[in-house]
Amino acid sequence: MPSPLKFYLAGPEVFLPDARAILDAKADLTRTYGFEPLCPGDLTIPPAPTKHQFGLNISEVDEDFMNRADGVIANLTPFRGIAADPGTVFELGYMCGADKLVACYTNVAETHYQRTLAWYDGKLDRDVEGRMRGPDGHSLEDFDMIENLMLHGGVARRGGPVVVHAADPAALYTDLTGFEECLKALAERV
Amino acid sequence: MPSPLKFYLAGPEVFLPDARAILDAKADLTRTYGFEPLCPGDLTIPPAPTKHQFGLNISEVDEDFMNRADGVIANLTPFRGIAADPGTVFELGYMCGADKLVACYTNVAETHYQRTLAWYDGKLDRDVEGRMRGPDGHSLEDFDMIENLMLHGGVARRGGPVVVHAADPAALYTDLTGFEECLKALAERV
Repeated sequence: MPSPLKFYLAGPEVFLPDARAILDAKADLTRTYGFEPLCPGDLTIPPAPTKHQFGLNISEVDEDFMNRADGVIANLTPFRGIAADPGTVFELGYMCGADKLVACYTNVAETHYQRTLAWYDGKLDRDVEGRMRGPDGHSLEDFDMIENLMLHGGVARRGGPVVVHAADPAALYTDLTGFEECLKALAERV
Repeated sequence: MPSPLKFYLAGPEVFLPDARAILDAKADLTRTYGFEPLCPGDLTIPPAPTKHQFGLNISEVDEDFMNRADGVIANLTPFRGIAADPGTVFELGYMCGADKLVACYTNVAETHYQRTLAWYDGKLDRDVEGRMRGPDGHSLEDFDMIENLMLHGGVARRGGPVVVHAADPAALYTDLTGFEECLKALAERV
């Protein structure tokens, strides 16, 4: 029997009050689809003399997990603002750069464009070239994508699923419907 | 004479009203340090029948630039919120995953922790394990880093410069002091 494919489970779950429970639930679900989960929560971080060095140690351990994984499933649900958690975004980019299998999902139905529009309270202008800009002069992307085009495009162009599920706001970070859709798509693909 | 090292210049400059001017200034500065610049603005994007496909085309062109580059200099100055532009974060992760040279800078002096604290208006509590959490229950990282530990750690652990420069807010996206510090550090290193 071949060894199961390993997926790194990237997302902001590590910051939740019930991080362990939700990471365990994601890991269990991953196994039911025949894959082996690698979670950033599954760590024993080497102690360090400074908090800075401790952060570097976590970075090393998480990169090691990614290097061992065959792919990533990234939770791009917006976190502390209109964009995905930067750690998760970095990890998705890392796995694209390392030529691994990639999948992503979001629990928010609004597109990147719609969220940016809301950031500007709907106040947009068109510049002389017809480009939409906020009151700060910064231009908006509208590519019908869930995130910045490098993220959405990086996954879609590799054939990975880009799943959108409108979760109940109360379950924004715990609803696993979109996550399971990614697992299903990956199981059909490999 | 060996061909110069190529650096991909990642950052939110592409969204600025004067994108072309600032990208050209960064490219010129890069050349003065003996490197060849590759900018996401230097594109001829294949036309596409839908805006979605056009976004995918940009993703492909930008990834191609990164694949041709020997390294990246990422502008992690916070953009539309407390974190760096997600496209830039993806690109920094991509280049770490592809094992290239990496450098980053920010034009904001506050750490990731300080910005997150401000996001919560300073309202933090400690949970039973002593971990700091915002009113939404989400935990805060305090690793004395400019961004999420995967970003700062990914660059620092590879020996790349992590430059902090407190720019005048009016020049937040145009001040090239930190960018030039990265070039200096890379020129000394290679």
